[in-house]
Amino acid sequence: TFTQGEQTVTLIPGDGIGPEISAAVMKIFEAAKAPIQWEERNVTAIKGPGGKWMIPPDAKESMDKNKIGLKGPLKTPIAAGHPSMNLLLRKTFDLYANVRPCVSIEGYKTPYTDVNLVTIRENTEGEYSGIEHVIVDGVVQSIKLITEQASQRIAEYAFEYARNNQRASVTAVHKANIMRMSDGLFLRKCREAAEKHRDVKFTEMYLDTVCLNMVQDPTQFDVLVMPNLYGDILSDLCAGLIGGLGVTPSGNIGANGVAIFESVHGTAPDIAGKDMANPTALLLSAVMMLRHMGLHGHAKKIEAACFDTIRDEKVRTKDLGGNSKCSEFTDAICQRVRDMD
Amino acid sequence: TFTQGEQTVTLIPGDGIGPEISAAVMKIFEAAKAPIQWEERNVTAIKGPGGKWMIPPDAKESMDKNKIGLKGPLKTPIAAGHPSMNLLLRKTFDLYANVRPCVSIEGYKTPYTDVNLVTIRENTEGEYSGIEHVIVDGVVQSIKLITEQASQRIAEYAFEYARNNQRASVTAVHKANIMRMSDGLFLRKCREAAEKHRDVKFTEMYLDTVCLNMVQDPTQFDVLVMPNLYGDILSDLCAGLIGGLGVTPSGNIGANGVAIFESVHGTAPDIAGKDMANPTALLLSAVMMLRHMGLHGHAKKIEAACFDTIRDEKVRTKDLGGNSKCSEFTDAICQRVRDMD
Ligand SMILES: CC(C)[C@H](C(=O)O)[C@@H](O)C(=O)O
Ligand SMILES: CC(C)[C@H](C(=O)O)[C@@H](O)C(=O)O
Repeated sequence: TFTQGEQTVTLIPGDGIGPEISAAVMKIFEAAKAPIQWEERNVTAIKGPGGKWMIPPDAKESMDKNKIGLKGPLKTPIAAGHPSMNLLLRKTFDLYANVRPCVSIEGYKTPYTDVNLVTIRENTEGEYSGIEHVIVDGVVQSIKLITEQASQRIAEYAFEYARNNQRASVTAVHKANIMRMSDGLFLRKCREAAEKHRDVKFTEMYLDTVCLNMVQDPTQFDVLVMPNLYGDILSDLCAGLIGGLGVTPSGNIGANGVAIFESVHGTAPDIAGKDMANPTALLLSAVMMLRHMGLHGHAKKIEAACFDTIRDEKVRTKDLGGNSKCSEFTDAICQRVRDMD
Repeated sequence: TFTQGEQTVTLIPGDGIGPEISAAVMKIFEAAKAPIQWEERNVTAIKGPGGKWMIPPDAKESMDKNKIGLKGPLKTPIAAGHPSMNLLLRKTFDLYANVRPCVSIEGYKTPYTDVNLVTIRENTEGEYSGIEHVIVDGVVQSIKLITEQASQRIAEYAFEYARNNQRASVTAVHKANIMRMSDGLFLRKCREAAEKHRDVKFTEMYLDTVCLNMVQDPTQFDVLVMPNLYGDILSDLCAGLIGGLGVTPSGNIGANGVAIFESVHGTAPDIAGKDMANPTALLLSAVMMLRHMGLHGHAKKIEAACFDTIRDEKVRTKDLGGNSKCSEFTDAICQRVRDMD
């Protein structure tokens, strides 16, 4: 039943608790009458011609057609020599920006309140180039690759993001005092983008200083943009400030509207199939997706229902300090969504 | 007046607030009758033959003779093309291990209590190799260099440190899932060292996971060992947990007993000369130095006097939330030291 105005999204439920939390998201979307049609695909990598690992063709085709995906956790590594599927997806669809909003959740206690920042990570190069050599026995080099093109693209993205999301400042995170040429190039591109977006405040800060200031007072930060590895580190650190990967959404953004939204927690095989998982991270990722698609009303409604349910404390999954099952938590959100109509 | 049994230490007061906090440390050491003779040296870099920046010969000679140094903050960069003096010192004296104990200070409130960990950072190679190239216009590479020798040396050091300081576990921090060869080599050397030190528990953890867990519950960590850049990041992050660089000591350790202990905060030019600086970081670094020299009794006494003064709350410098001058804080510690006799 394809209703007028519906858009199709590729759904990659993933492994472990992936199917359960995906089902939860679908149920909540239905309750909210979100105009989304799901096209389920499996992305266990296969060996293509020449022995290269690749995304299964039907998953690739689905994404190529729909442009937008929602993804649960994937187990990794599946076998020796098997690539990280997360990396392969980023590469296959050139998802150059990893975006993670970290916002304190009212009623869910951590040592911090009022965190409200976004990490924007360059997702395609840097320390993740995969180029390594043995120079002589016992001497290894890994190459960090920084290009003008990718740096410019991510810098531009950060400022556009700030502008489109009513955020006041962008901080470029770097170690250009040590990696003068590579981080220097990255920083230069950020400065150039800043010149073009004078409505957004621009600052630069060393990565170590950011980490130190972050744990002392995260409220001083707004949008942060940085090379790949620094983003890997900072995005997890910031997730920790608001309660961990179980409550942190994530989006991988490419060109021309292509994007995959995902929960970045693990597959939690120990509780898989036991109706105990917390669908919050995947749900909030799906909310990011709705905003990306311009469906702001549905996004707002679902997000509010999720936060209200957590704030209320009566129905929470175990990892959030409660006793409720995944299905109970899901139903509570559905109920709130319906009550808003 | 050189008393029998005294040892001489090279003192590098440094810039900005450096001279004041160095004077404070000397005063407290005198009150504690620590058997230390100070040899003051300036380390503003000079251009040697061939235009290479180097430590002034009289500072180098002093360190070569005394083997042990205590250093205040240095302003950086002094001029374009001027190297970081901190890096030059590490290099000149092959100070391969940066050691930072991060211990919660009773009575000084941060979001965390009971932090008690030590970061051990490889200090000579990795991302700090300084090798960078432009491949083609707009494409830059930085080389991360990991050697078997340096990895083995730091891994061994971490386990020896754990054993000598009654610490139960060592965690190797890495991204060998991404940098398989370089971080892989580092990790292999840690595993080998672990095999040789079965009395110390060994774990491995991804850097991103460490950062996430660190801000959620730092008490789970004990000794952490890692390559250069990861150490730069994590050591500052951990300093943030206990109150920042103003209260965090640091030691740079080389072979054959050579070591430089230093405060890692800045020169604070805005308050320099105003008797407002907090000497705690340099004092606790000097306490680390005393332990390194086997002067455990003096170390314990000075450390206790410092912590007692902070806990008491009556005499604290401004950055610690008090109203006292540097000299008042120093005198309060001296008084406590004398009272212990
Ligand atoms: C799974 C792993 C390859 C990945 C990374 O290092 O980028 C993960 O940590 C992430 O942040 O998505
Ligand atoms: C001053 C700078 C070169 C240095 C570094 O990056 O190592 C500093 O951050 C440190 O941790 O000592």
